[in-house]
Amino acid sequence: MSLPNTLYLPELREMLAENNAAELREFCTALHPARTADFMEGLTPAEAWAVLQYAEMPVRAEIFGYFDRDKQVEIIRSVDRKAMAEFIAHLPPDDRVDILNEVEPQLVADLLPLLPPAERRDILRLRSYPENTAGAMMTTQFARLGEDLTVREALDELGRQASELETIYYIYILDSQDHLRGLVSARQLVSAIGRPETRLADLMEKELVTANVNDDQEEVARKVARYDLLAIPVVDQERHMLGIITHDDVIDVVVEEASEDAYHMGGVTPLAMNYLETRFLTVWRKRAGWLSLLFVAELFTFTALASFEDAIAQIIALSLFVPLCISTGGNSGSQAATLITRAIALGQVTVRDWWRVLRHELAMGLALGATLGAIGFFRAALTPQEILGSVNHWQLAWVISQAVAVICLWGTLTGSMLPLIFKRFGVDPGFASSPFVATLVDVTGIVIYFSIAKAYLL
Amino acid sequence: MSLPNTLYLPELREMLAENNAAELREFCTALHPARTADFMEGLTPAEAWAVLQYAEMPVRAEIFGYFDRDKQVEIIRSVDRKAMAEFIAHLPPDDRVDILNEVEPQLVADLLPLLPPAERRDILRLRSYPENTAGAMMTTQFARLGEDLTVREALDELGRQASELETIYYIYILDSQDHLRGLVSARQLVSAIGRPETRLADLMEKELVTANVNDDQEEVARKVARYDLLAIPVVDQERHMLGIITHDDVIDVVVEEASEDAYHMGGVTPLAMNYLETRFLTVWRKRAGWLSLLFVAELFTFTALASFEDAIAQIIALSLFVPLCISTGGNSGSQAATLITRAIALGQVTVRDWWRVLRHELAMGLALGATLGAIGFFRAALTPQEILGSVNHWQLAWVISQAVAVICLWGTLTGSMLPLIFKRFGVDPGFASSPFVATLVDVTGIVIYFSIAKAYLL
Repeated sequence: MSLPNTLYLPELREMLAENNAAELREFCTALHPARTADFMEGLTPAEAWAVLQYAEMPVRAEIFGYFDRDKQVEIIRSVDRKAMAEFIAHLPPDDRVDILNEVEPQLVADLLPLLPPAERRDILRLRSYPENTAGAMMTTQFARLGEDLTVREALDELGRQASELETIYYIYILDSQDHLRGLVSARQLVSAIGRPETRLADLMEKELVTANVNDDQEEVARKVARYDLLAIPVVDQERHMLGIITHDDVIDVVVEEASEDAYHMGGVTPLAMNYLETRFLTVWRKRAGWLSLLFVAELFTFTALASFEDAIAQIIALSLFVPLCISTGGNSGSQAATLITRAIALGQVTVRDWWRVLRHELAMGLALGATLGAIGFFRAALTPQEILGSVNHWQLAWVISQAVAVICLWGTLTGSMLPLIFKRFGVDPGFASSPFVATLVDVTGIVIYFSIAKAYLL
Repeated sequence: MSLPNTLYLPELREMLAENNAAELREFCTALHPARTADFMEGLTPAEAWAVLQYAEMPVRAEIFGYFDRDKQVEIIRSVDRKAMAEFIAHLPPDDRVDILNEVEPQLVADLLPLLPPAERRDILRLRSYPENTAGAMMTTQFARLGEDLTVREALDELGRQASELETIYYIYILDSQDHLRGLVSARQLVSAIGRPETRLADLMEKELVTANVNDDQEEVARKVARYDLLAIPVVDQERHMLGIITHDDVIDVVVEEASEDAYHMGGVTPLAMNYLETRFLTVWRKRAGWLSLLFVAELFTFTALASFEDAIAQIIALSLFVPLCISTGGNSGSQAATLITRAIALGQVTVRDWWRVLRHELAMGLALGATLGAIGFFRAALTPQEILGSVNHWQLAWVISQAVAVICLWGTLTGSMLPLIFKRFGVDPGFASSPFVATLVDVTGIVIYFSIAKAYLL
């Protein structure tokens, strides 16, 4: 996957130059559409579009669906609008909305009037749901039947619907006003094949796990994972069925959220694109922007230290422990933040649990602080007297161990509470593990350390 | 989800005390098995087992499958062995192996002889695959048919198999030696219902995406996500079909790997258990162990600084920039490490790309270093003369900007190369984002900073 698939590029280009319809048609259909898309990676948008013309419409849409988002957008930009509108009408409803969301508004405005009315309405409706909600994730294509059908009639009807649908593994039973009444799985239907006159109403499950159209996508992903579902129906407040979210989109959300969390922790604005393929300047801008912000924030450590310059001038040994004190706060803070952020992501902790978390982390911070303080005490006590100057090394050990313990407690409390506070105000709790918070703890760590040192030594 | 579901506990216990079979049977079947399991969360293992006796075997196994792993293990420990062996035979093959892997070897040795021979062999075989491979993830239950069957015969046969199988959405076509020949989806089968005499050989897809039994679970998860599969067949070198891995197990792997990565980055040994439910001492041991290690490693910053004590004594202002220099290395290092680790996880970069990555990060490190160096220059130039003592502030600015630039470059190179080196030697690349590496960069940052300062100022 790491090397672009350039193996077949010369052959593909030759086939195109020769208008070799037979071989191009063979190329488009012989492999899994995802692998076909991989082999087309090196083609220009115009070439890729030319190759796609040799595939039947459903396969064409499938191969297109496996292209990178960037390539999809470029193709949409470069192709004749009428041809593109016809093609877009054949894409899965959720995918085409995702793609159109990345295209310039003007181009979308040009394309929409060229679409068949049903597809146009569908696109406008799906685009109206806020980002990261179930509504924005769902597709409006699903298998639907009435409850009065028999198993035999249902199978015949499905045989007609199947070719147009992304998935028929769950069949939704709706009444005439589109209220969700129940669900029959393809497995149940096939199992009932020996009793062809059974009515769906007697076969269907009525206790369904559903998602509300306004639910957050993370919550939906959690439900699908918890209940091992292939797809989850999306309903509104009145239980009208609006669409389904399928397992493959859920995997994408889980991967996306994991990447986002990691990027926050690592101090990188999410790079939506491929690492080695993104332009140097784009990457530099994002990385430098983030690092510069952190650098400017970290300048406050200088300000904090400068205000204790008199103390350092009197006892130079104090300055030698600054990195240790700072890193203690950073490490204990990011540890606590990671645990709480993951616990939130896995649904084990919610904002309402803040008091339980606070009590837990208060006790934990004290225990951890005592542990580190003890280690710090012994190390500081071993400091050679010539470095210490006028200070007694037991005194110094006492100061260091207290400072380490207090900073560890402070880091633990900050790290555990910030994710919950962020979550409460609608900010991604993952930011609490970010270096910004580490910077906050760094500066406060310096103040705590020198305040304790001054109280005992000066 | 955060509060234990204690709502129905008194009612459930009353039903048990009264042997109220009708209501207990209703409780076991009315809801989705996952929700039934949620409501049983507060019961003791013995009570949970007693309630399960009121469910038919397939539902009983399903509800059990949604219990926490800990509870499953406790139930296995506490129940009569003969009854447990009978029950285990009805669990899905992949789940029962996962559970038995958490039980004491002696108990497993006691249970195995009580199992029917076919199930015993199956368990022993699945347990022989190394952890985190496709073999250890797969289930051996899948729908299989011969290629000579017609659509009508296939539907009849499936109707018989369906009730025993976890999934029938993909039907695998095997020859008499169990070689994988092709695949027919339930959707294709239902679409062909109007042509009941079609042979499966003419319907099946032959170009299949498969996993090798020795493949790493992350690689399998990536394939399933890339190809939007419901399940992937697992084969050996000779293309004998051994089992399938289903989409729900893939989601679990993705979530598990994301948690592991986050824990590494946050400096927490993976806590397999629920945050608020794990015992305080267990959590303390894991967290304190990790923090203490980091603390001891960070003690080297003291040693490094102490060796430059003479420089600090001469120019106290130098000590004020130590946290800034250290954090520059840490931030640029963890940024690069995060990007490369994610790129590896998403399959965009492999170890063989190390040279391309190195060149890219060398250029990027220089660009980023120049950016931060410039900011550092201006800030240092603004330092009030009374803090600086004998040092000229332009001189100091020059030293700081050079040190920041070199440390940024060094952090970027270290952060980008370590994940690849770790990967090369079979270590999880996520460790490169961990605080251990930050500590390494901290210590070297101090040495770089003071070496530059000494060269110019002393």
